[in-house]
Amino acid sequence: MQINLTDKKIGILAGGGDLPAKIIDKCKQDGKEFFVITFKDQDRPTNYDSLAVNETAEFGLGAVGAVIKKLKQENVEELVLAGYIKKPSLFNLNLDLTGVKILAKVAVHHDDKLLRAIADEMETKGFTLLGAHNLCDDLLIGNEILSGKKLATTKSDDIVLGIKMAHEIGKLDIGQAVIVKDKVILGVEAVEGTDALIERCAALRGKDAKGGLLIKMSKPQQNLNLDMPSIGIKTIKKLAEHGYDGVVVSANSTIFLDKDESIKVAEKHNLLVAGVDVNDCE
Amino acid sequence: MQINLTDKKIGILAGGGDLPAKIIDKCKQDGKEFFVITFKDQDRPTNYDSLAVNETAEFGLGAVGAVIKKLKQENVEELVLAGYIKKPSLFNLNLDLTGVKILAKVAVHHDDKLLRAIADEMETKGFTLLGAHNLCDDLLIGNEILSGKKLATTKSDDIVLGIKMAHEIGKLDIGQAVIVKDKVILGVEAVEGTDALIERCAALRGKDAKGGLLIKMSKPQQNLNLDMPSIGIKTIKKLAEHGYDGVVVSANSTIFLDKDESIKVAEKHNLLVAGVDVNDCE
Repeated sequence: MQINLTDKKIGILAGGGDLPAKIIDKCKQDGKEFFVITFKDQDRPTNYDSLAVNETAEFGLGAVGAVIKKLKQENVEELVLAGYIKKPSLFNLNLDLTGVKILAKVAVHHDDKLLRAIADEMETKGFTLLGAHNLCDDLLIGNEILSGKKLATTKSDDIVLGIKMAHEIGKLDIGQAVIVKDKVILGVEAVEGTDALIERCAALRGKDAKGGLLIKMSKPQQNLNLDMPSIGIKTIKKLAEHGYDGVVVSANSTIFLDKDESIKVAEKHNLLVAGVDVNDCE
Repeated sequence: MQINLTDKKIGILAGGGDLPAKIIDKCKQDGKEFFVITFKDQDRPTNYDSLAVNETAEFGLGAVGAVIKKLKQENVEELVLAGYIKKPSLFNLNLDLTGVKILAKVAVHHDDKLLRAIADEMETKGFTLLGAHNLCDDLLIGNEILSGKKLATTKSDDIVLGIKMAHEIGKLDIGQAVIVKDKVILGVEAVEGTDALIERCAALRGKDAKGGLLIKMSKPQQNLNLDMPSIGIKTIKKLAEHGYDGVVVSANSTIFLDKDESIKVAEKHNLLVAGVDVNDCE
Protein backbone atom coordinates (compact mmCIF):
# COMPACT_ATOMS: atom_id res chain seq x y z
CA MET A 1 0.00 0.00 0.00
CA GLN A 2 1.44 3.34 -1.05
CA ILE A 3 0.41 6.28 1.06
CA ASN A 4 0.43 9.70 -0.53
CA LEU A 5 2.72 12.07 1.31
CA THR A 6 3.21 14.85 -1.21
CA ASP A 7 2.63 18.44 -0.21
CA LYS A 8 0.54 19.15 -3.29
CA LYS A 9 -2.92 20.61 -2.87
CA ILE A 10 -5.63 18.03 -3.44
CA GLY A 11 -9.09 18.50 -4.95
CA ILE A 12 -11.76 16.29 -3.40
CA LEU A 13 -14.69 15.62 -5.74
CA ALA A 14 -17.18 14.66 -3.07
CA GLY A 15 -20.37 12.61 -3.52
CA GLY A 16 -22.63 11.17 -0.81
CA GLY A 17 -21.66 8.87 2.06
CA ASP A 18 -18.91 8.78 4.67
CA LEU A 19 -15.84 8.63 2.49
CA PRO A 20 -15.42 12.36 1.77
CA ALA A 21 -15.42 13.21 5.49
CA LYS A 22 -12.87 10.49 6.13
CA ILE A 23 -10.56 11.94 3.50
CA ILE A 24 -11.07 15.52 4.67
CA ASP A 25 -10.22 14.44 8.24
CA LYS A 26 -7.10 12.69 7.00
CA CYS A 27 -6.00 15.77 5.06
CA LYS A 28 -6.49 17.93 8.16
CA GLN A 29 -4.54 15.43 10.28
CA ASP A 30 -1.68 15.33 7.79
CA GLY A 31 -1.76 19.10 7.25
CA LYS A 32 -2.41 18.54 3.55
CA GLU A 33 -4.10 21.41 1.70
CA PHE A 34 -7.40 20.55 0.02
CA PHE A 35 -10.35 21.98 -1.87
CA VAL A 36 -13.74 20.23 -1.93
CA ILE A 37 -16.15 20.19 -4.86
CA THR A 38 -19.73 19.07 -4.11
CA PHE A 39 -22.51 18.54 -6.65
CA LYS A 40 -25.99 19.94 -7.18
CA ASP A 41 -28.94 17.48 -7.05
CA GLN A 42 -26.69 14.88 -5.43
CA ASP A 43 -26.46 13.66 -1.85
CA ARG A 44 -24.10 15.80 0.23
CA PRO A 45 -21.24 14.04 1.99
CA THR A 46 -22.37 12.73 5.40
CA ASN A 47 -21.99 15.36 8.15
CA TYR A 48 -20.62 17.80 5.61
CA ASP A 49 -22.00 20.88 7.35
CA SER A 50 -20.54 19.92 10.72
CA LEU A 51 -17.11 19.60 9.10
CA ALA A 52 -17.23 23.37 8.47
CA VAL A 53 -15.12 23.20 5.35
CA ASN A 54 -14.45 26.68 3.97
CA GLU A 55 -12.53 25.56 0.92
CA THR A 56 -15.52 24.34 -1.07
CA ALA A 57 -17.70 25.06 -4.11
CA GLU A 58 -20.75 23.40 -5.63
CA PHE A 59 -21.28 22.62 -9.32
CA GLY A 60 -23.73 20.80 -11.55
CA LEU A 61 -22.56 17.29 -12.33
CA GLY A 62 -22.14 18.06 -16.01
CA ALA A 63 -20.18 21.29 -15.55
CA VAL A 64 -16.82 19.65 -16.12
CA GLY A 65 -15.25 22.72 -17.68
CA ALA A 66 -16.25 24.93 -14.75
CA VAL A 67 -14.92 22.42 -12.22
CA ILE A 68 -11.56 22.28 -13.99
CA LYS A 69 -11.37 26.10 -14.10
CA LYS A 70 -12.14 26.36 -10.38
CA LEU A 71 -9.57 23.69 -9.46
CA LYS A 72 -6.92 25.50 -11.51
CA GLN A 73 -7.78 28.80 -9.75
CA GLU A 74 -7.36 27.03 -6.42
CA ASN A 75 -3.94 25.66 -7.51
CA VAL A 76 -5.08 22.07 -7.05
CA GLU A 77 -2.62 19.54 -8.51
CA GLU A 78 -4.02 16.22 -7.32
CA LEU A 79 -7.57 14.90 -7.45
CA VAL A 80 -9.52 12.25 -5.57
CA LEU A 81 -13.10 11.14 -6.27
CA ALA A 82 -14.85 10.15 -3.06
CA GLY A 83 -18.38 9.08 -2.21
CA TYR A 84 -21.21 7.91 -4.37
CA ILE A 85 -22.99 9.68 -7.20
CA LYS A 86 -26.66 8.78 -7.63
CA LYS A 87 -27.62 6.86 -10.74
CA PRO A 88 -29.02 7.06 -13.38
CA SER A 89 -27.70 10.58 -13.31
CA LEU A 90 -26.15 10.13 -16.76
CA PHE A 91 -29.48 10.82 -18.38
CA ASN A 92 -30.01 13.97 -16.38
CA LEU A 93 -26.70 15.74 -16.91
CA ASN A 94 -26.71 19.40 -17.85
CA LEU A 95 -23.51 19.25 -19.81
CA ASP A 96 -21.31 22.24 -20.44
CA LEU A 97 -19.06 22.35 -23.50
CA THR A 98 -16.24 20.31 -21.94
CA GLY A 99 -18.84 17.83 -20.73
CA VAL A 100 -20.27 17.44 -24.22
CA LYS A 101 -16.79 16.93 -25.68
CA ILE A 102 -16.07 14.19 -23.13
CA LEU A 103 -19.38 12.45 -23.71
CA ALA A 104 -18.81 12.54 -27.45
CA LYS A 105 -15.65 10.48 -26.89
CA VAL A 106 -17.55 7.76 -25.08
CA ALA A 107 -18.93 5.18 -27.49
CA VAL A 108 -20.98 3.33 -24.89
CA HIS A 109 -21.56 5.86 -22.18
CA HIS A 110 -21.82 3.52 -19.26
CA ASP A 111 -20.67 5.06 -15.98
CA ASP A 112 -17.38 3.28 -16.15
CA LYS A 113 -16.39 4.54 -19.59
CA LEU A 114 -17.68 8.00 -18.79
CA LEU A 115 -15.59 8.16 -15.62
CA ARG A 116 -12.52 7.08 -17.56
CA ALA A 117 -13.17 9.76 -20.18
CA ILE A 118 -13.48 12.40 -17.43
CA ALA A 119 -10.28 11.08 -15.82
CA ASP A 120 -8.43 11.28 -19.14
CA GLU A 121 -9.60 14.87 -19.54
CA MET A 122 -8.44 15.70 -16.00
CA GLU A 123 -5.03 14.14 -16.60
CA THR A 124 -4.71 16.01 -19.89
CA LYS A 125 -5.29 19.19 -17.89
CA GLY A 126 -2.36 18.33 -15.62
CA PHE A 127 -4.09 16.83 -12.58
CA THR A 128 -2.83 13.63 -10.94
CA LEU A 129 -5.58 11.21 -9.99
CA LEU A 130 -5.37 9.45 -6.62
CA GLY A 131 -7.54 6.73 -5.10
CA ALA A 132 -9.15 7.22 -1.69
CA HIS A 133 -7.14 4.19 -0.55
CA ASN A 134 -3.92 6.06 -1.42
CA LEU A 135 -4.86 8.60 1.22
CA CYS A 136 -6.48 6.35 3.86
CA ASP A 137 -4.75 3.01 4.03
CA ASP A 138 -7.26 1.34 6.35
CA LEU A 139 -10.07 1.36 3.81
CA LEU A 140 -9.38 -1.78 1.76
CA ILE A 141 -10.66 -5.31 2.34
CA GLY A 142 -7.84 -7.80 1.94
CA ASN A 143 -7.90 -11.50 1.08
CA GLU A 144 -9.54 -12.29 4.41
CA ILE A 145 -12.65 -13.53 6.17
CA LEU A 146 -13.86 -10.73 8.44
CA SER A 147 -16.84 -12.62 9.84
CA GLY A 148 -18.71 -15.90 9.31
CA LYS A 149 -15.70 -18.17 8.80
CA LYS A 150 -17.79 -21.36 8.93
CA LEU A 151 -20.24 -20.09 6.30
CA ALA A 152 -17.36 -19.55 3.88
CA THR A 153 -16.78 -23.30 3.79
CA THR A 154 -20.39 -24.43 3.47
CA LYS A 155 -21.11 -21.87 0.76
CA SER A 156 -17.87 -22.30 -1.18
CA ASP A 157 -19.55 -23.57 -4.39
CA ASP A 158 -21.83 -20.56 -4.48
CA ILE A 159 -18.91 -18.24 -3.75
CA VAL A 160 -16.86 -19.63 -6.64
CA LEU A 161 -19.82 -19.49 -9.06
CA GLY A 162 -20.77 -15.98 -7.94
CA ILE A 163 -17.23 -14.64 -8.27
CA LYS A 164 -16.88 -16.07 -11.78
CA MET A 165 -20.21 -14.62 -12.88
CA ALA A 166 -19.66 -11.21 -11.27
CA HIS A 167 -16.25 -11.12 -12.95
CA GLU A 168 -17.78 -11.86 -16.38
CA ILE A 169 -20.59 -9.32 -15.87
CA GLY A 170 -17.92 -6.79 -14.94
CA LYS A 171 -15.89 -7.59 -18.07
CA LEU A 172 -19.00 -6.81 -20.15
CA ASP A 173 -19.16 -3.44 -18.34
CA ILE A 174 -22.73 -4.17 -17.22
CA GLY A 175 -22.28 -4.11 -13.45
CA GLN A 176 -20.29 -5.37 -10.48
CA ALA A 177 -22.58 -7.55 -8.44
CA VAL A 178 -24.64 -10.73 -8.55
CA ILE A 179 -26.68 -12.60 -5.98
CA VAL A 180 -26.27 -16.37 -5.88
CA LYS A 181 -28.12 -19.07 -3.97
CA ASP A 182 -27.83 -22.85 -4.30
CA LYS A 183 -25.79 -22.53 -7.50
CA VAL A 184 -28.35 -20.29 -9.19
CA ILE A 185 -27.64 -16.67 -10.13
CA LEU A 186 -30.79 -15.01 -8.80
CA GLY A 187 -30.01 -11.53 -10.03
CA VAL A 188 -27.46 -9.39 -11.84
CA GLU A 189 -26.82 -5.77 -11.01
CA ALA A 190 -26.92 -3.27 -13.86
CA VAL A 191 -28.16 0.32 -13.40
CA GLU A 192 -30.38 -0.28 -10.34
CA GLY A 193 -27.54 -0.43 -7.81
CA THR A 194 -26.62 -2.95 -5.12
CA ASP A 195 -29.35 -2.08 -2.61
CA ALA A 196 -32.12 -2.52 -5.18
CA LEU A 197 -30.53 -5.81 -6.26
CA ILE A 198 -30.58 -7.09 -2.68
CA GLU A 199 -34.22 -6.07 -2.27
CA ARG A 200 -35.56 -7.56 -5.47
CA CYS A 201 -33.69 -10.85 -5.14
CA ALA A 202 -35.15 -11.34 -1.66
CA ALA A 203 -38.43 -12.35 -3.33
CA LEU A 204 -36.72 -14.78 -5.74
CA ARG A 205 -35.35 -17.24 -3.20
CA GLY A 206 -38.13 -19.83 -3.19
CA LYS A 207 -40.36 -20.94 -0.34
CA ASP A 208 -38.04 -20.34 2.63
CA ALA A 209 -37.08 -16.89 1.28
CA LYS A 210 -33.78 -16.99 3.15
CA GLY A 211 -30.10 -17.23 2.34
CA GLY A 212 -28.10 -16.23 -0.69
CA LEU A 213 -24.87 -14.31 -1.06
CA LEU A 214 -24.08 -10.93 -2.53
CA ILE A 215 -20.93 -11.12 -4.62
CA LYS A 216 -19.41 -7.78 -5.62
CA MET A 217 -16.30 -7.66 -7.77
CA SER A 218 -14.31 -4.81 -9.24
CA LYS A 219 -14.30 -4.87 -13.04
CA PRO A 220 -11.04 -6.09 -14.61
CA GLN A 221 -10.83 -2.89 -16.68
CA GLN A 222 -11.84 -0.60 -13.79
CA ASN A 223 -9.62 2.33 -12.84
CA LEU A 224 -9.54 1.78 -9.09
CA ASN A 225 -8.27 5.29 -8.42
CA LEU A 226 -11.42 6.59 -10.03
CA ASP A 227 -14.20 4.39 -8.88
CA MET A 228 -13.43 1.58 -6.47
CA PRO A 229 -16.35 -0.63 -5.44
CA SER A 230 -17.35 -0.19 -1.83
CA ILE A 231 -19.56 -1.73 0.80
CA GLY A 232 -20.63 -0.28 4.10
CA ILE A 233 -23.02 -0.54 7.01
CA LYS A 234 -26.08 0.14 4.80
CA THR A 235 -25.37 -2.92 2.67
CA ILE A 236 -24.62 -5.13 5.69
CA LYS A 237 -27.82 -4.04 7.43
CA LYS A 238 -29.89 -4.64 4.29
CA LEU A 239 -28.44 -8.15 3.91
CA ALA A 240 -29.21 -8.89 7.57
CA GLU A 241 -32.73 -7.47 7.32
CA HIS A 242 -33.57 -9.79 4.42
CA GLY A 243 -31.96 -12.91 5.89
CA TYR A 244 -29.12 -13.26 3.41
CA ASP A 245 -25.99 -15.30 4.18
CA GLY A 246 -23.55 -12.46 3.59
CA VAL A 247 -21.27 -10.73 1.12
CA VAL A 248 -18.06 -11.57 -0.70
CA VAL A 249 -16.02 -8.86 -2.43
CA SER A 250 -12.85 -8.74 -4.50
CA ALA A 251 -9.80 -8.59 -2.26
CA ASN A 252 -7.62 -5.47 -2.35
CA SER A 253 -9.98 -3.66 -4.69
CA THR A 254 -12.99 -2.95 -2.48
CA ILE A 255 -13.38 -0.15 0.04
CA PHE A 256 -15.02 -1.11 3.34
CA LEU A 257 -16.66 1.88 4.96
CA ASP A 258 -17.78 1.68 8.59
CA LYS A 259 -15.69 -1.48 8.94
CA ASP A 260 -15.87 -1.90 12.73
CA GLU A 261 -19.59 -1.24 13.03
CA SER A 262 -20.31 -3.44 9.98
CA ILE A 263 -18.43 -6.42 11.37
CA LYS A 264 -20.30 -6.12 14.66
CA VAL A 265 -23.64 -6.25 12.82
CA ALA A 266 -22.41 -9.07 10.58
CA GLU A 267 -21.33 -11.18 13.55
CA LYS A 268 -24.61 -10.57 15.36
CA HIS A 269 -26.57 -11.85 12.33
CA ASN A 270 -24.08 -14.59 11.43
CA LEU A 271 -23.29 -12.99 8.07
CA LEU A 272 -20.26 -13.91 6.02
CA VAL A 273 -18.08 -10.92 5.11
CA ALA A 274 -15.01 -11.81 3.10
CA GLY A 275 -12.56 -10.62 0.49
CA VAL A 276 -11.48 -13.19 -2.11
CA ASP A 277 -8.95 -12.88 -4.91
CA VAL A 278 -10.70 -13.58 -8.21
CA ASN A 279 -7.63 -15.49 -9.41
CA ASP A 280 -8.18 -18.03 -6.63
CA CYS A 281 -11.43 -19.05 -8.36
CA GLU A 282 -10.03 -19.83 -11.80
CA MET B 1 -38.93 -25.80 -41.42
CA GLN B 2 -39.49 -29.49 -40.80
CA ILE B 3 -43.02 -30.41 -39.80
CA ASN B 4 -43.56 -33.59 -37.87
CA LEU B 5 -45.83 -35.96 -39.73
CA THR B 6 -45.20 -39.24 -37.93
CA ASP B 7 -48.11 -41.28 -36.64
CA LYS B 8 -46.47 -41.77 -33.27
CA LYS B 9 -48.38 -40.82 -30.13
CA ILE B 10 -47.10 -37.58 -28.62
CA GLY B 11 -46.90 -36.60 -24.95
CA ILE B 12 -47.54 -32.92 -24.33
CA LEU B 13 -45.94 -31.65 -21.10
CA ALA B 14 -48.12 -28.61 -20.66
CA GLY B 15 -47.34 -25.48 -18.64
CA GLY B 16 -49.27 -22.21 -18.59
CA GLY B 17 -50.10 -19.95 -21.53
CA ASP B 18 -51.57 -20.41 -24.99
CA LEU B 19 -49.04 -22.78 -26.53
CA PRO B 20 -50.40 -26.09 -25.18
CA ALA B 21 -53.88 -25.40 -26.59
CA LYS B 22 -52.36 -24.49 -29.94
CA ILE B 23 -50.50 -27.80 -30.06
CA ILE B 24 -53.51 -29.80 -28.90
CA ASP B 25 -55.62 -28.18 -31.65
CA LYS B 26 -52.97 -29.00 -34.22
CA CYS B 27 -52.84 -32.64 -33.09
CA LYS B 28 -56.64 -32.88 -33.36
CA GLN B 29 -56.55 -31.29 -36.83
CA ASP B 30 -53.85 -33.67 -38.02
CA GLY B 31 -55.47 -36.69 -36.35
CA LYS B 32 -52.31 -37.21 -34.30
CA GLU B 33 -52.76 -39.13 -31.03
CA PHE B 34 -51.67 -37.28 -27.88
CA PHE B 35 -51.60 -37.45 -24.11
CA VAL B 36 -51.33 -34.28 -21.97
CA ILE B 37 -49.46 -33.99 -18.67
CA THR B 38 -50.25 -30.92 -16.54
CA PHE B 39 -48.51 -29.93 -13.30
CA LYS B 40 -49.62 -29.25 -9.74
CA ASP B 41 -49.04 -25.77 -8.31
CA GLN B 42 -48.44 -24.44 -11.80
CA ASP B 43 -50.63 -22.35 -14.10
CA ARG B 44 -52.95 -24.50 -16.19
CA PRO B 45 -52.79 -24.10 -19.96
CA THR B 46 -55.07 -21.26 -21.11
CA ASN B 47 -58.64 -22.46 -21.75
CA TYR B 48 -57.62 -25.97 -20.79
CA ASP B 49 -61.02 -26.92 -19.37
CA SER B 50 -62.88 -25.79 -22.46
CA LEU B 51 -60.63 -28.00 -24.58
CA ALA B 52 -62.24 -31.02 -22.83
CA VAL B 53 -59.12 -33.17 -23.15
CA ASN B 54 -59.78 -36.65 -21.79
CA GLU B 55 -56.26 -37.96 -22.33
CA THR B 56 -54.66 -36.13 -19.44
CA ALA B 57 -53.06 -36.56 -16.01
CA GLU B 58 -51.62 -34.19 -13.43
CA PHE B 59 -48.31 -34.65 -11.57
CA GLY B 60 -46.06 -32.74 -9.21
CA LEU B 61 -43.28 -31.00 -11.08
CA GLY B 62 -40.60 -33.15 -9.45
CA ALA B 63 -42.29 -36.48 -10.06
CA VAL B 64 -40.20 -37.27 -13.11
CA GLY B 65 -40.27 -41.03 -12.57
CA ALA B 66 -44.07 -41.12 -12.29
CA VAL B 67 -44.45 -39.01 -15.45
CA ILE B 68 -42.20 -41.38 -17.39
CA LYS B 69 -44.15 -44.41 -16.12
CA LYS B 70 -47.47 -42.84 -17.13
CA LEU B 71 -46.19 -41.90 -20.59
CA LYS B 72 -44.93 -45.46 -21.13
CA GLN B 73 -48.34 -46.84 -20.07
CA GLU B 74 -49.97 -44.55 -22.61
CA ASN B 75 -47.59 -45.76 -25.35
CA VAL B 76 -46.26 -42.25 -25.91
CA GLU B 77 -43.16 -42.21 -28.15
CA GLU B 78 -42.63 -38.51 -28.78
CA LEU B 79 -42.58 -35.61 -26.33
CA VAL B 80 -43.09 -31.88 -26.58
CA LEU B 81 -42.72 -29.33 -23.76
CA ALA B 82 -45.15 -26.47 -24.20
CA GLY B 83 -46.07 -23.42 -22.14
CA TYR B 84 -44.30 -21.77 -19.26
CA ILE B 85 -43.37 -23.18 -15.87
CA LYS B 86 -43.36 -20.65 -13.04
CA LYS B 87 -40.01 -19.76 -11.53
CA PRO B 88 -38.29 -20.12 -9.13
CA SER B 89 -39.94 -23.49 -8.97
CA LEU B 90 -36.55 -25.20 -8.75
CA PHE B 91 -36.39 -24.49 -5.04
CA ASN B 92 -39.85 -25.87 -4.43
CA LEU B 93 -39.63 -29.22 -6.21
CA ASN B 94 -40.86 -32.30 -4.43
CA LEU B 95 -38.49 -34.65 -6.16
CA ASP B 96 -39.12 -38.35 -6.55
CA LEU B 97 -36.18 -40.74 -6.90
CA THR B 98 -35.72 -40.19 -10.65
CA GLY B 99 -35.97 -36.47 -10.02
CA VAL B 100 -33.25 -36.63 -7.39
CA LYS B 101 -30.99 -38.64 -9.71
CA ILE B 102 -31.42 -36.07 -12.45
CA LEU B 103 -30.76 -33.15 -10.14
CA ALA B 104 -27.65 -34.86 -8.82
CA LYS B 105 -26.24 -34.81 -12.38
CA VAL B 106 -26.65 -31.07 -12.68
CA ALA B 107 -23.63 -29.23 -11.35
CA VAL B 108 -25.16 -25.79 -11.58
CA HIS B 109 -28.88 -26.42 -11.49
CA HIS B 110 -30.01 -23.46 -13.44
CA ASP B 111 -33.25 -24.05 -15.35
CA ASP B 112 -31.42 -24.55 -18.57
CA LYS B 113 -29.10 -27.29 -17.33
CA LEU B 114 -31.91 -28.93 -15.40
CA LEU B 115 -34.09 -29.06 -18.50
CA ARG B 116 -31.25 -30.61 -20.46
CA ALA B 117 -30.74 -33.24 -17.76
CA ILE B 118 -34.46 -34.08 -17.82
CA ALA B 119 -34.33 -34.26 -21.64
CA ASP B 120 -31.34 -36.60 -21.51
CA GLU B 121 -33.22 -38.83 -19.10
CA MET B 122 -36.29 -38.82 -21.36
CA GLU B 123 -34.20 -39.71 -24.40
CA THR B 124 -32.49 -42.49 -22.46
CA LYS B 125 -35.98 -43.85 -21.76
CA GLY B 126 -36.68 -43.99 -25.49
CA PHE B 127 -38.70 -40.82 -26.05
CA THR B 128 -38.02 -38.50 -28.99
CA LEU B 129 -38.08 -34.84 -28.09
CA LEU B 130 -39.79 -32.40 -30.47
CA GLY B 131 -40.04 -28.62 -30.40
CA ALA B 132 -43.41 -26.88 -30.51
CA HIS B 133 -42.25 -25.27 -33.77
CA ASN B 134 -41.85 -28.77 -35.28
CA LEU B 135 -45.59 -29.21 -34.81
CA CYS B 136 -46.83 -25.67 -35.54
CA ASP B 137 -44.75 -24.02 -38.24
CA ASP B 138 -46.30 -20.55 -37.89
CA LEU B 139 -44.88 -19.97 -34.41
CA LEU B 140 -41.37 -18.72 -35.17
CA ILE B 141 -40.19 -15.13 -35.68
CA GLY B 142 -37.88 -14.93 -38.69
CA ASN B 143 -35.19 -12.39 -39.57
CA GLU B 144 -37.83 -9.71 -40.09
CA ILE B 145 -39.27 -6.44 -38.84
CA LEU B 146 -42.88 -7.08 -37.88
CA SER B 147 -43.66 -3.52 -36.81
CA GLY B 148 -41.87 -0.23 -36.23
CA LYS B 149 -39.53 -0.32 -39.25
CA LYS B 150 -38.37 3.27 -38.77
CA LEU B 151 -37.46 2.70 -35.12
CA ALA B 152 -35.17 -0.16 -36.13
CA THR B 153 -32.92 2.34 -37.91
CA THR B 154 -32.87 5.06 -35.26
CA LYS B 155 -32.22 2.54 -32.49
CA SER B 156 -29.69 0.41 -34.37
CA ASP B 157 -26.78 1.13 -31.98
CA ASP B 158 -28.87 0.06 -29.00
CA ILE B 159 -30.06 -3.04 -30.85
CA VAL B 160 -26.50 -4.15 -31.67
CA LEU B 161 -25.30 -3.50 -28.11
CA GLY B 162 -28.32 -5.23 -26.59
CA ILE B 163 -27.99 -8.31 -28.81
CA LYS B 164 -24.30 -8.67 -27.98
CA MET B 165 -24.93 -8.35 -24.25
CA ALA B 166 -27.98 -10.66 -24.21
CA HIS B 167 -25.90 -13.19 -26.15
CA GLU B 168 -23.08 -13.02 -23.58
CA ILE B 169 -25.49 -13.24 -20.64
CA GLY B 170 -27.03 -16.28 -22.31
CA LYS B 171 -23.61 -17.91 -22.78
CA LEU B 172 -23.06 -17.55 -19.03
CA ASP B 173 -26.39 -19.35 -18.53
CA ILE B 174 -27.68 -16.45 -16.43
CA GLY B 175 -30.68 -15.38 -18.52
CA GLN B 176 -31.93 -14.43 -21.96
CA ALA B 177 -32.92 -10.80 -21.85
CA VAL B 178 -31.56 -7.32 -21.27
CA ILE B 179 -33.05 -3.86 -21.49
CA VAL B 180 -31.00 -1.20 -23.23
CA LYS B 181 -31.48 2.54 -23.59
CA ASP B 182 -29.11 5.14 -25.04
CA LYS B 183 -26.21 2.63 -25.09
CA VAL B 184 -26.65 1.72 -21.43
CA ILE B 185 -27.70 -1.75 -20.27
CA LEU B 186 -30.38 -0.81 -17.73
CA GLY B 187 -31.12 -4.32 -16.54
CA VAL B 188 -30.23 -7.97 -16.98
CA GLU B 189 -32.74 -10.77 -16.57
CA ALA B 190 -31.82 -13.65 -14.28
CA VAL B 191 -34.43 -15.51 -12.21
CA GLU B 192 -37.04 -12.72 -12.03
CA GLY B 193 -38.39 -13.24 -15.56
CA THR B 194 -38.99 -10.88 -18.46
CA ASP B 195 -42.10 -9.14 -17.12
CA ALA B 196 -40.39 -8.22 -13.83
CA LEU B 197 -37.37 -6.99 -15.80
CA ILE B 198 -39.59 -4.70 -17.89
CA GLU B 199 -41.27 -3.33 -14.78
CA ARG B 200 -38.17 -2.66 -12.73
CA CYS B 201 -36.24 -1.04 -15.60
CA ALA B 202 -39.13 1.36 -16.22
CA ALA B 203 -37.95 3.31 -13.15
CA LEU B 204 -34.30 3.36 -14.29
CA ARG B 205 -34.71 5.40 -17.47
CA GLY B 206 -33.94 8.86 -16.13
CA LYS B 207 -36.14 11.96 -16.10
CA ASP B 208 -38.34 11.29 -19.13
CA ALA B 209 -38.92 7.67 -18.02
CA LYS B 210 -39.61 6.61 -21.60
CA GLY B 211 -38.03 4.49 -24.30
CA GLY B 212 -35.66 1.57 -24.13
CA LEU B 213 -35.69 -1.79 -25.88
CA LEU B 214 -36.18 -5.30 -24.58
CA ILE B 215 -33.68 -7.64 -26.24
CA LYS B 216 -34.35 -11.35 -25.78
CA MET B 217 -31.99 -13.92 -27.27
CA SER B 218 -31.92 -17.69 -27.17
CA LYS B 219 -28.82 -19.01 -25.43
CA PRO B 220 -26.15 -20.43 -27.78
CA GLN B 221 -26.17 -23.71 -25.82
CA GLN B 222 -29.97 -23.85 -25.52
CA ASN B 223 -31.85 -26.95 -26.72
CA LEU B 224 -34.55 -25.23 -28.72
CA ASN B 225 -36.72 -28.32 -28.81
CA LEU B 226 -36.84 -28.18 -25.04
CA ASP B 227 -37.18 -24.58 -24.11
CA MET B 228 -37.43 -22.01 -26.85
CA PRO B 229 -37.71 -18.36 -25.76
CA SER B 230 -41.09 -16.86 -26.50
CA ILE B 231 -42.86 -13.54 -26.48
CA GLY B 232 -46.59 -12.87 -26.63
CA ILE B 233 -49.30 -10.32 -26.13
CA LYS B 234 -48.57 -9.96 -22.40
CA THR B 235 -45.02 -8.79 -23.09
CA ILE B 236 -46.10 -6.46 -25.89
CA LYS B 237 -48.80 -4.89 -23.73
CA LYS B 238 -46.40 -4.44 -20.82
CA LEU B 239 -43.87 -2.71 -23.08
CA ALA B 240 -46.60 -0.41 -24.43
CA GLU B 241 -47.95 0.34 -20.95
CA HIS B 242 -44.52 1.51 -19.76
CA GLY B 243 -43.66 3.51 -22.88
CA TYR B 244 -40.82 1.34 -24.14
CA ASP B 245 -39.66 1.47 -27.77
CA GLY B 246 -40.18 -2.25 -28.43
CA VAL B 247 -38.61 -5.67 -28.50
CA VAL B 248 -35.96 -7.45 -30.56
CA VAL B 249 -35.59 -11.24 -30.42
CA SER B 250 -33.27 -13.79 -31.98
CA ALA B 251 -34.50 -14.78 -35.43
CA ASN B 252 -35.63 -18.37 -36.02
CA SER B 253 -35.27 -19.29 -32.38
CA THR B 254 -38.09 -17.38 -30.70
CA ILE B 255 -41.75 -18.36 -30.55
CA PHE B 256 -44.25 -15.56 -31.11
CA LEU B 257 -47.57 -16.37 -29.46
CA ASP B 258 -50.65 -14.28 -30.31
CA LYS B 259 -48.75 -12.91 -33.31
CA ASP B 260 -51.63 -11.12 -35.08
CA GLU B 261 -53.04 -9.48 -31.97
CA SER B 262 -49.55 -8.52 -30.76
CA ILE B 263 -48.62 -6.81 -34.02
CA LYS B 264 -51.85 -4.83 -33.92
CA VAL B 265 -51.03 -3.58 -30.40
CA ALA B 266 -47.41 -2.91 -31.38
CA GLU B 267 -48.43 -0.84 -34.40
CA LYS B 268 -50.96 1.14 -32.37
CA HIS B 269 -48.24 2.08 -29.84
CA ASN B 270 -45.47 2.50 -32.41
CA LEU B 271 -43.45 -0.36 -30.92
CA LEU B 272 -40.62 -2.06 -32.76
CA VAL B 273 -41.03 -5.84 -33.00
CA ALA B 274 -38.23 -7.57 -34.87
CA GLY B 275 -36.22 -10.75 -35.20
CA VAL B 276 -32.48 -10.32 -35.80
CA ASP B 277 -29.82 -12.94 -36.43
CA VAL B 278 -27.17 -12.63 -33.72
CA ASN B 279 -24.46 -13.29 -36.35
CA ASP B 280 -25.47 -10.08 -38.12
CA CYS B 281 -24.23 -8.15 -35.08
CA GLU B 282 -20.73 -9.55 -34.89
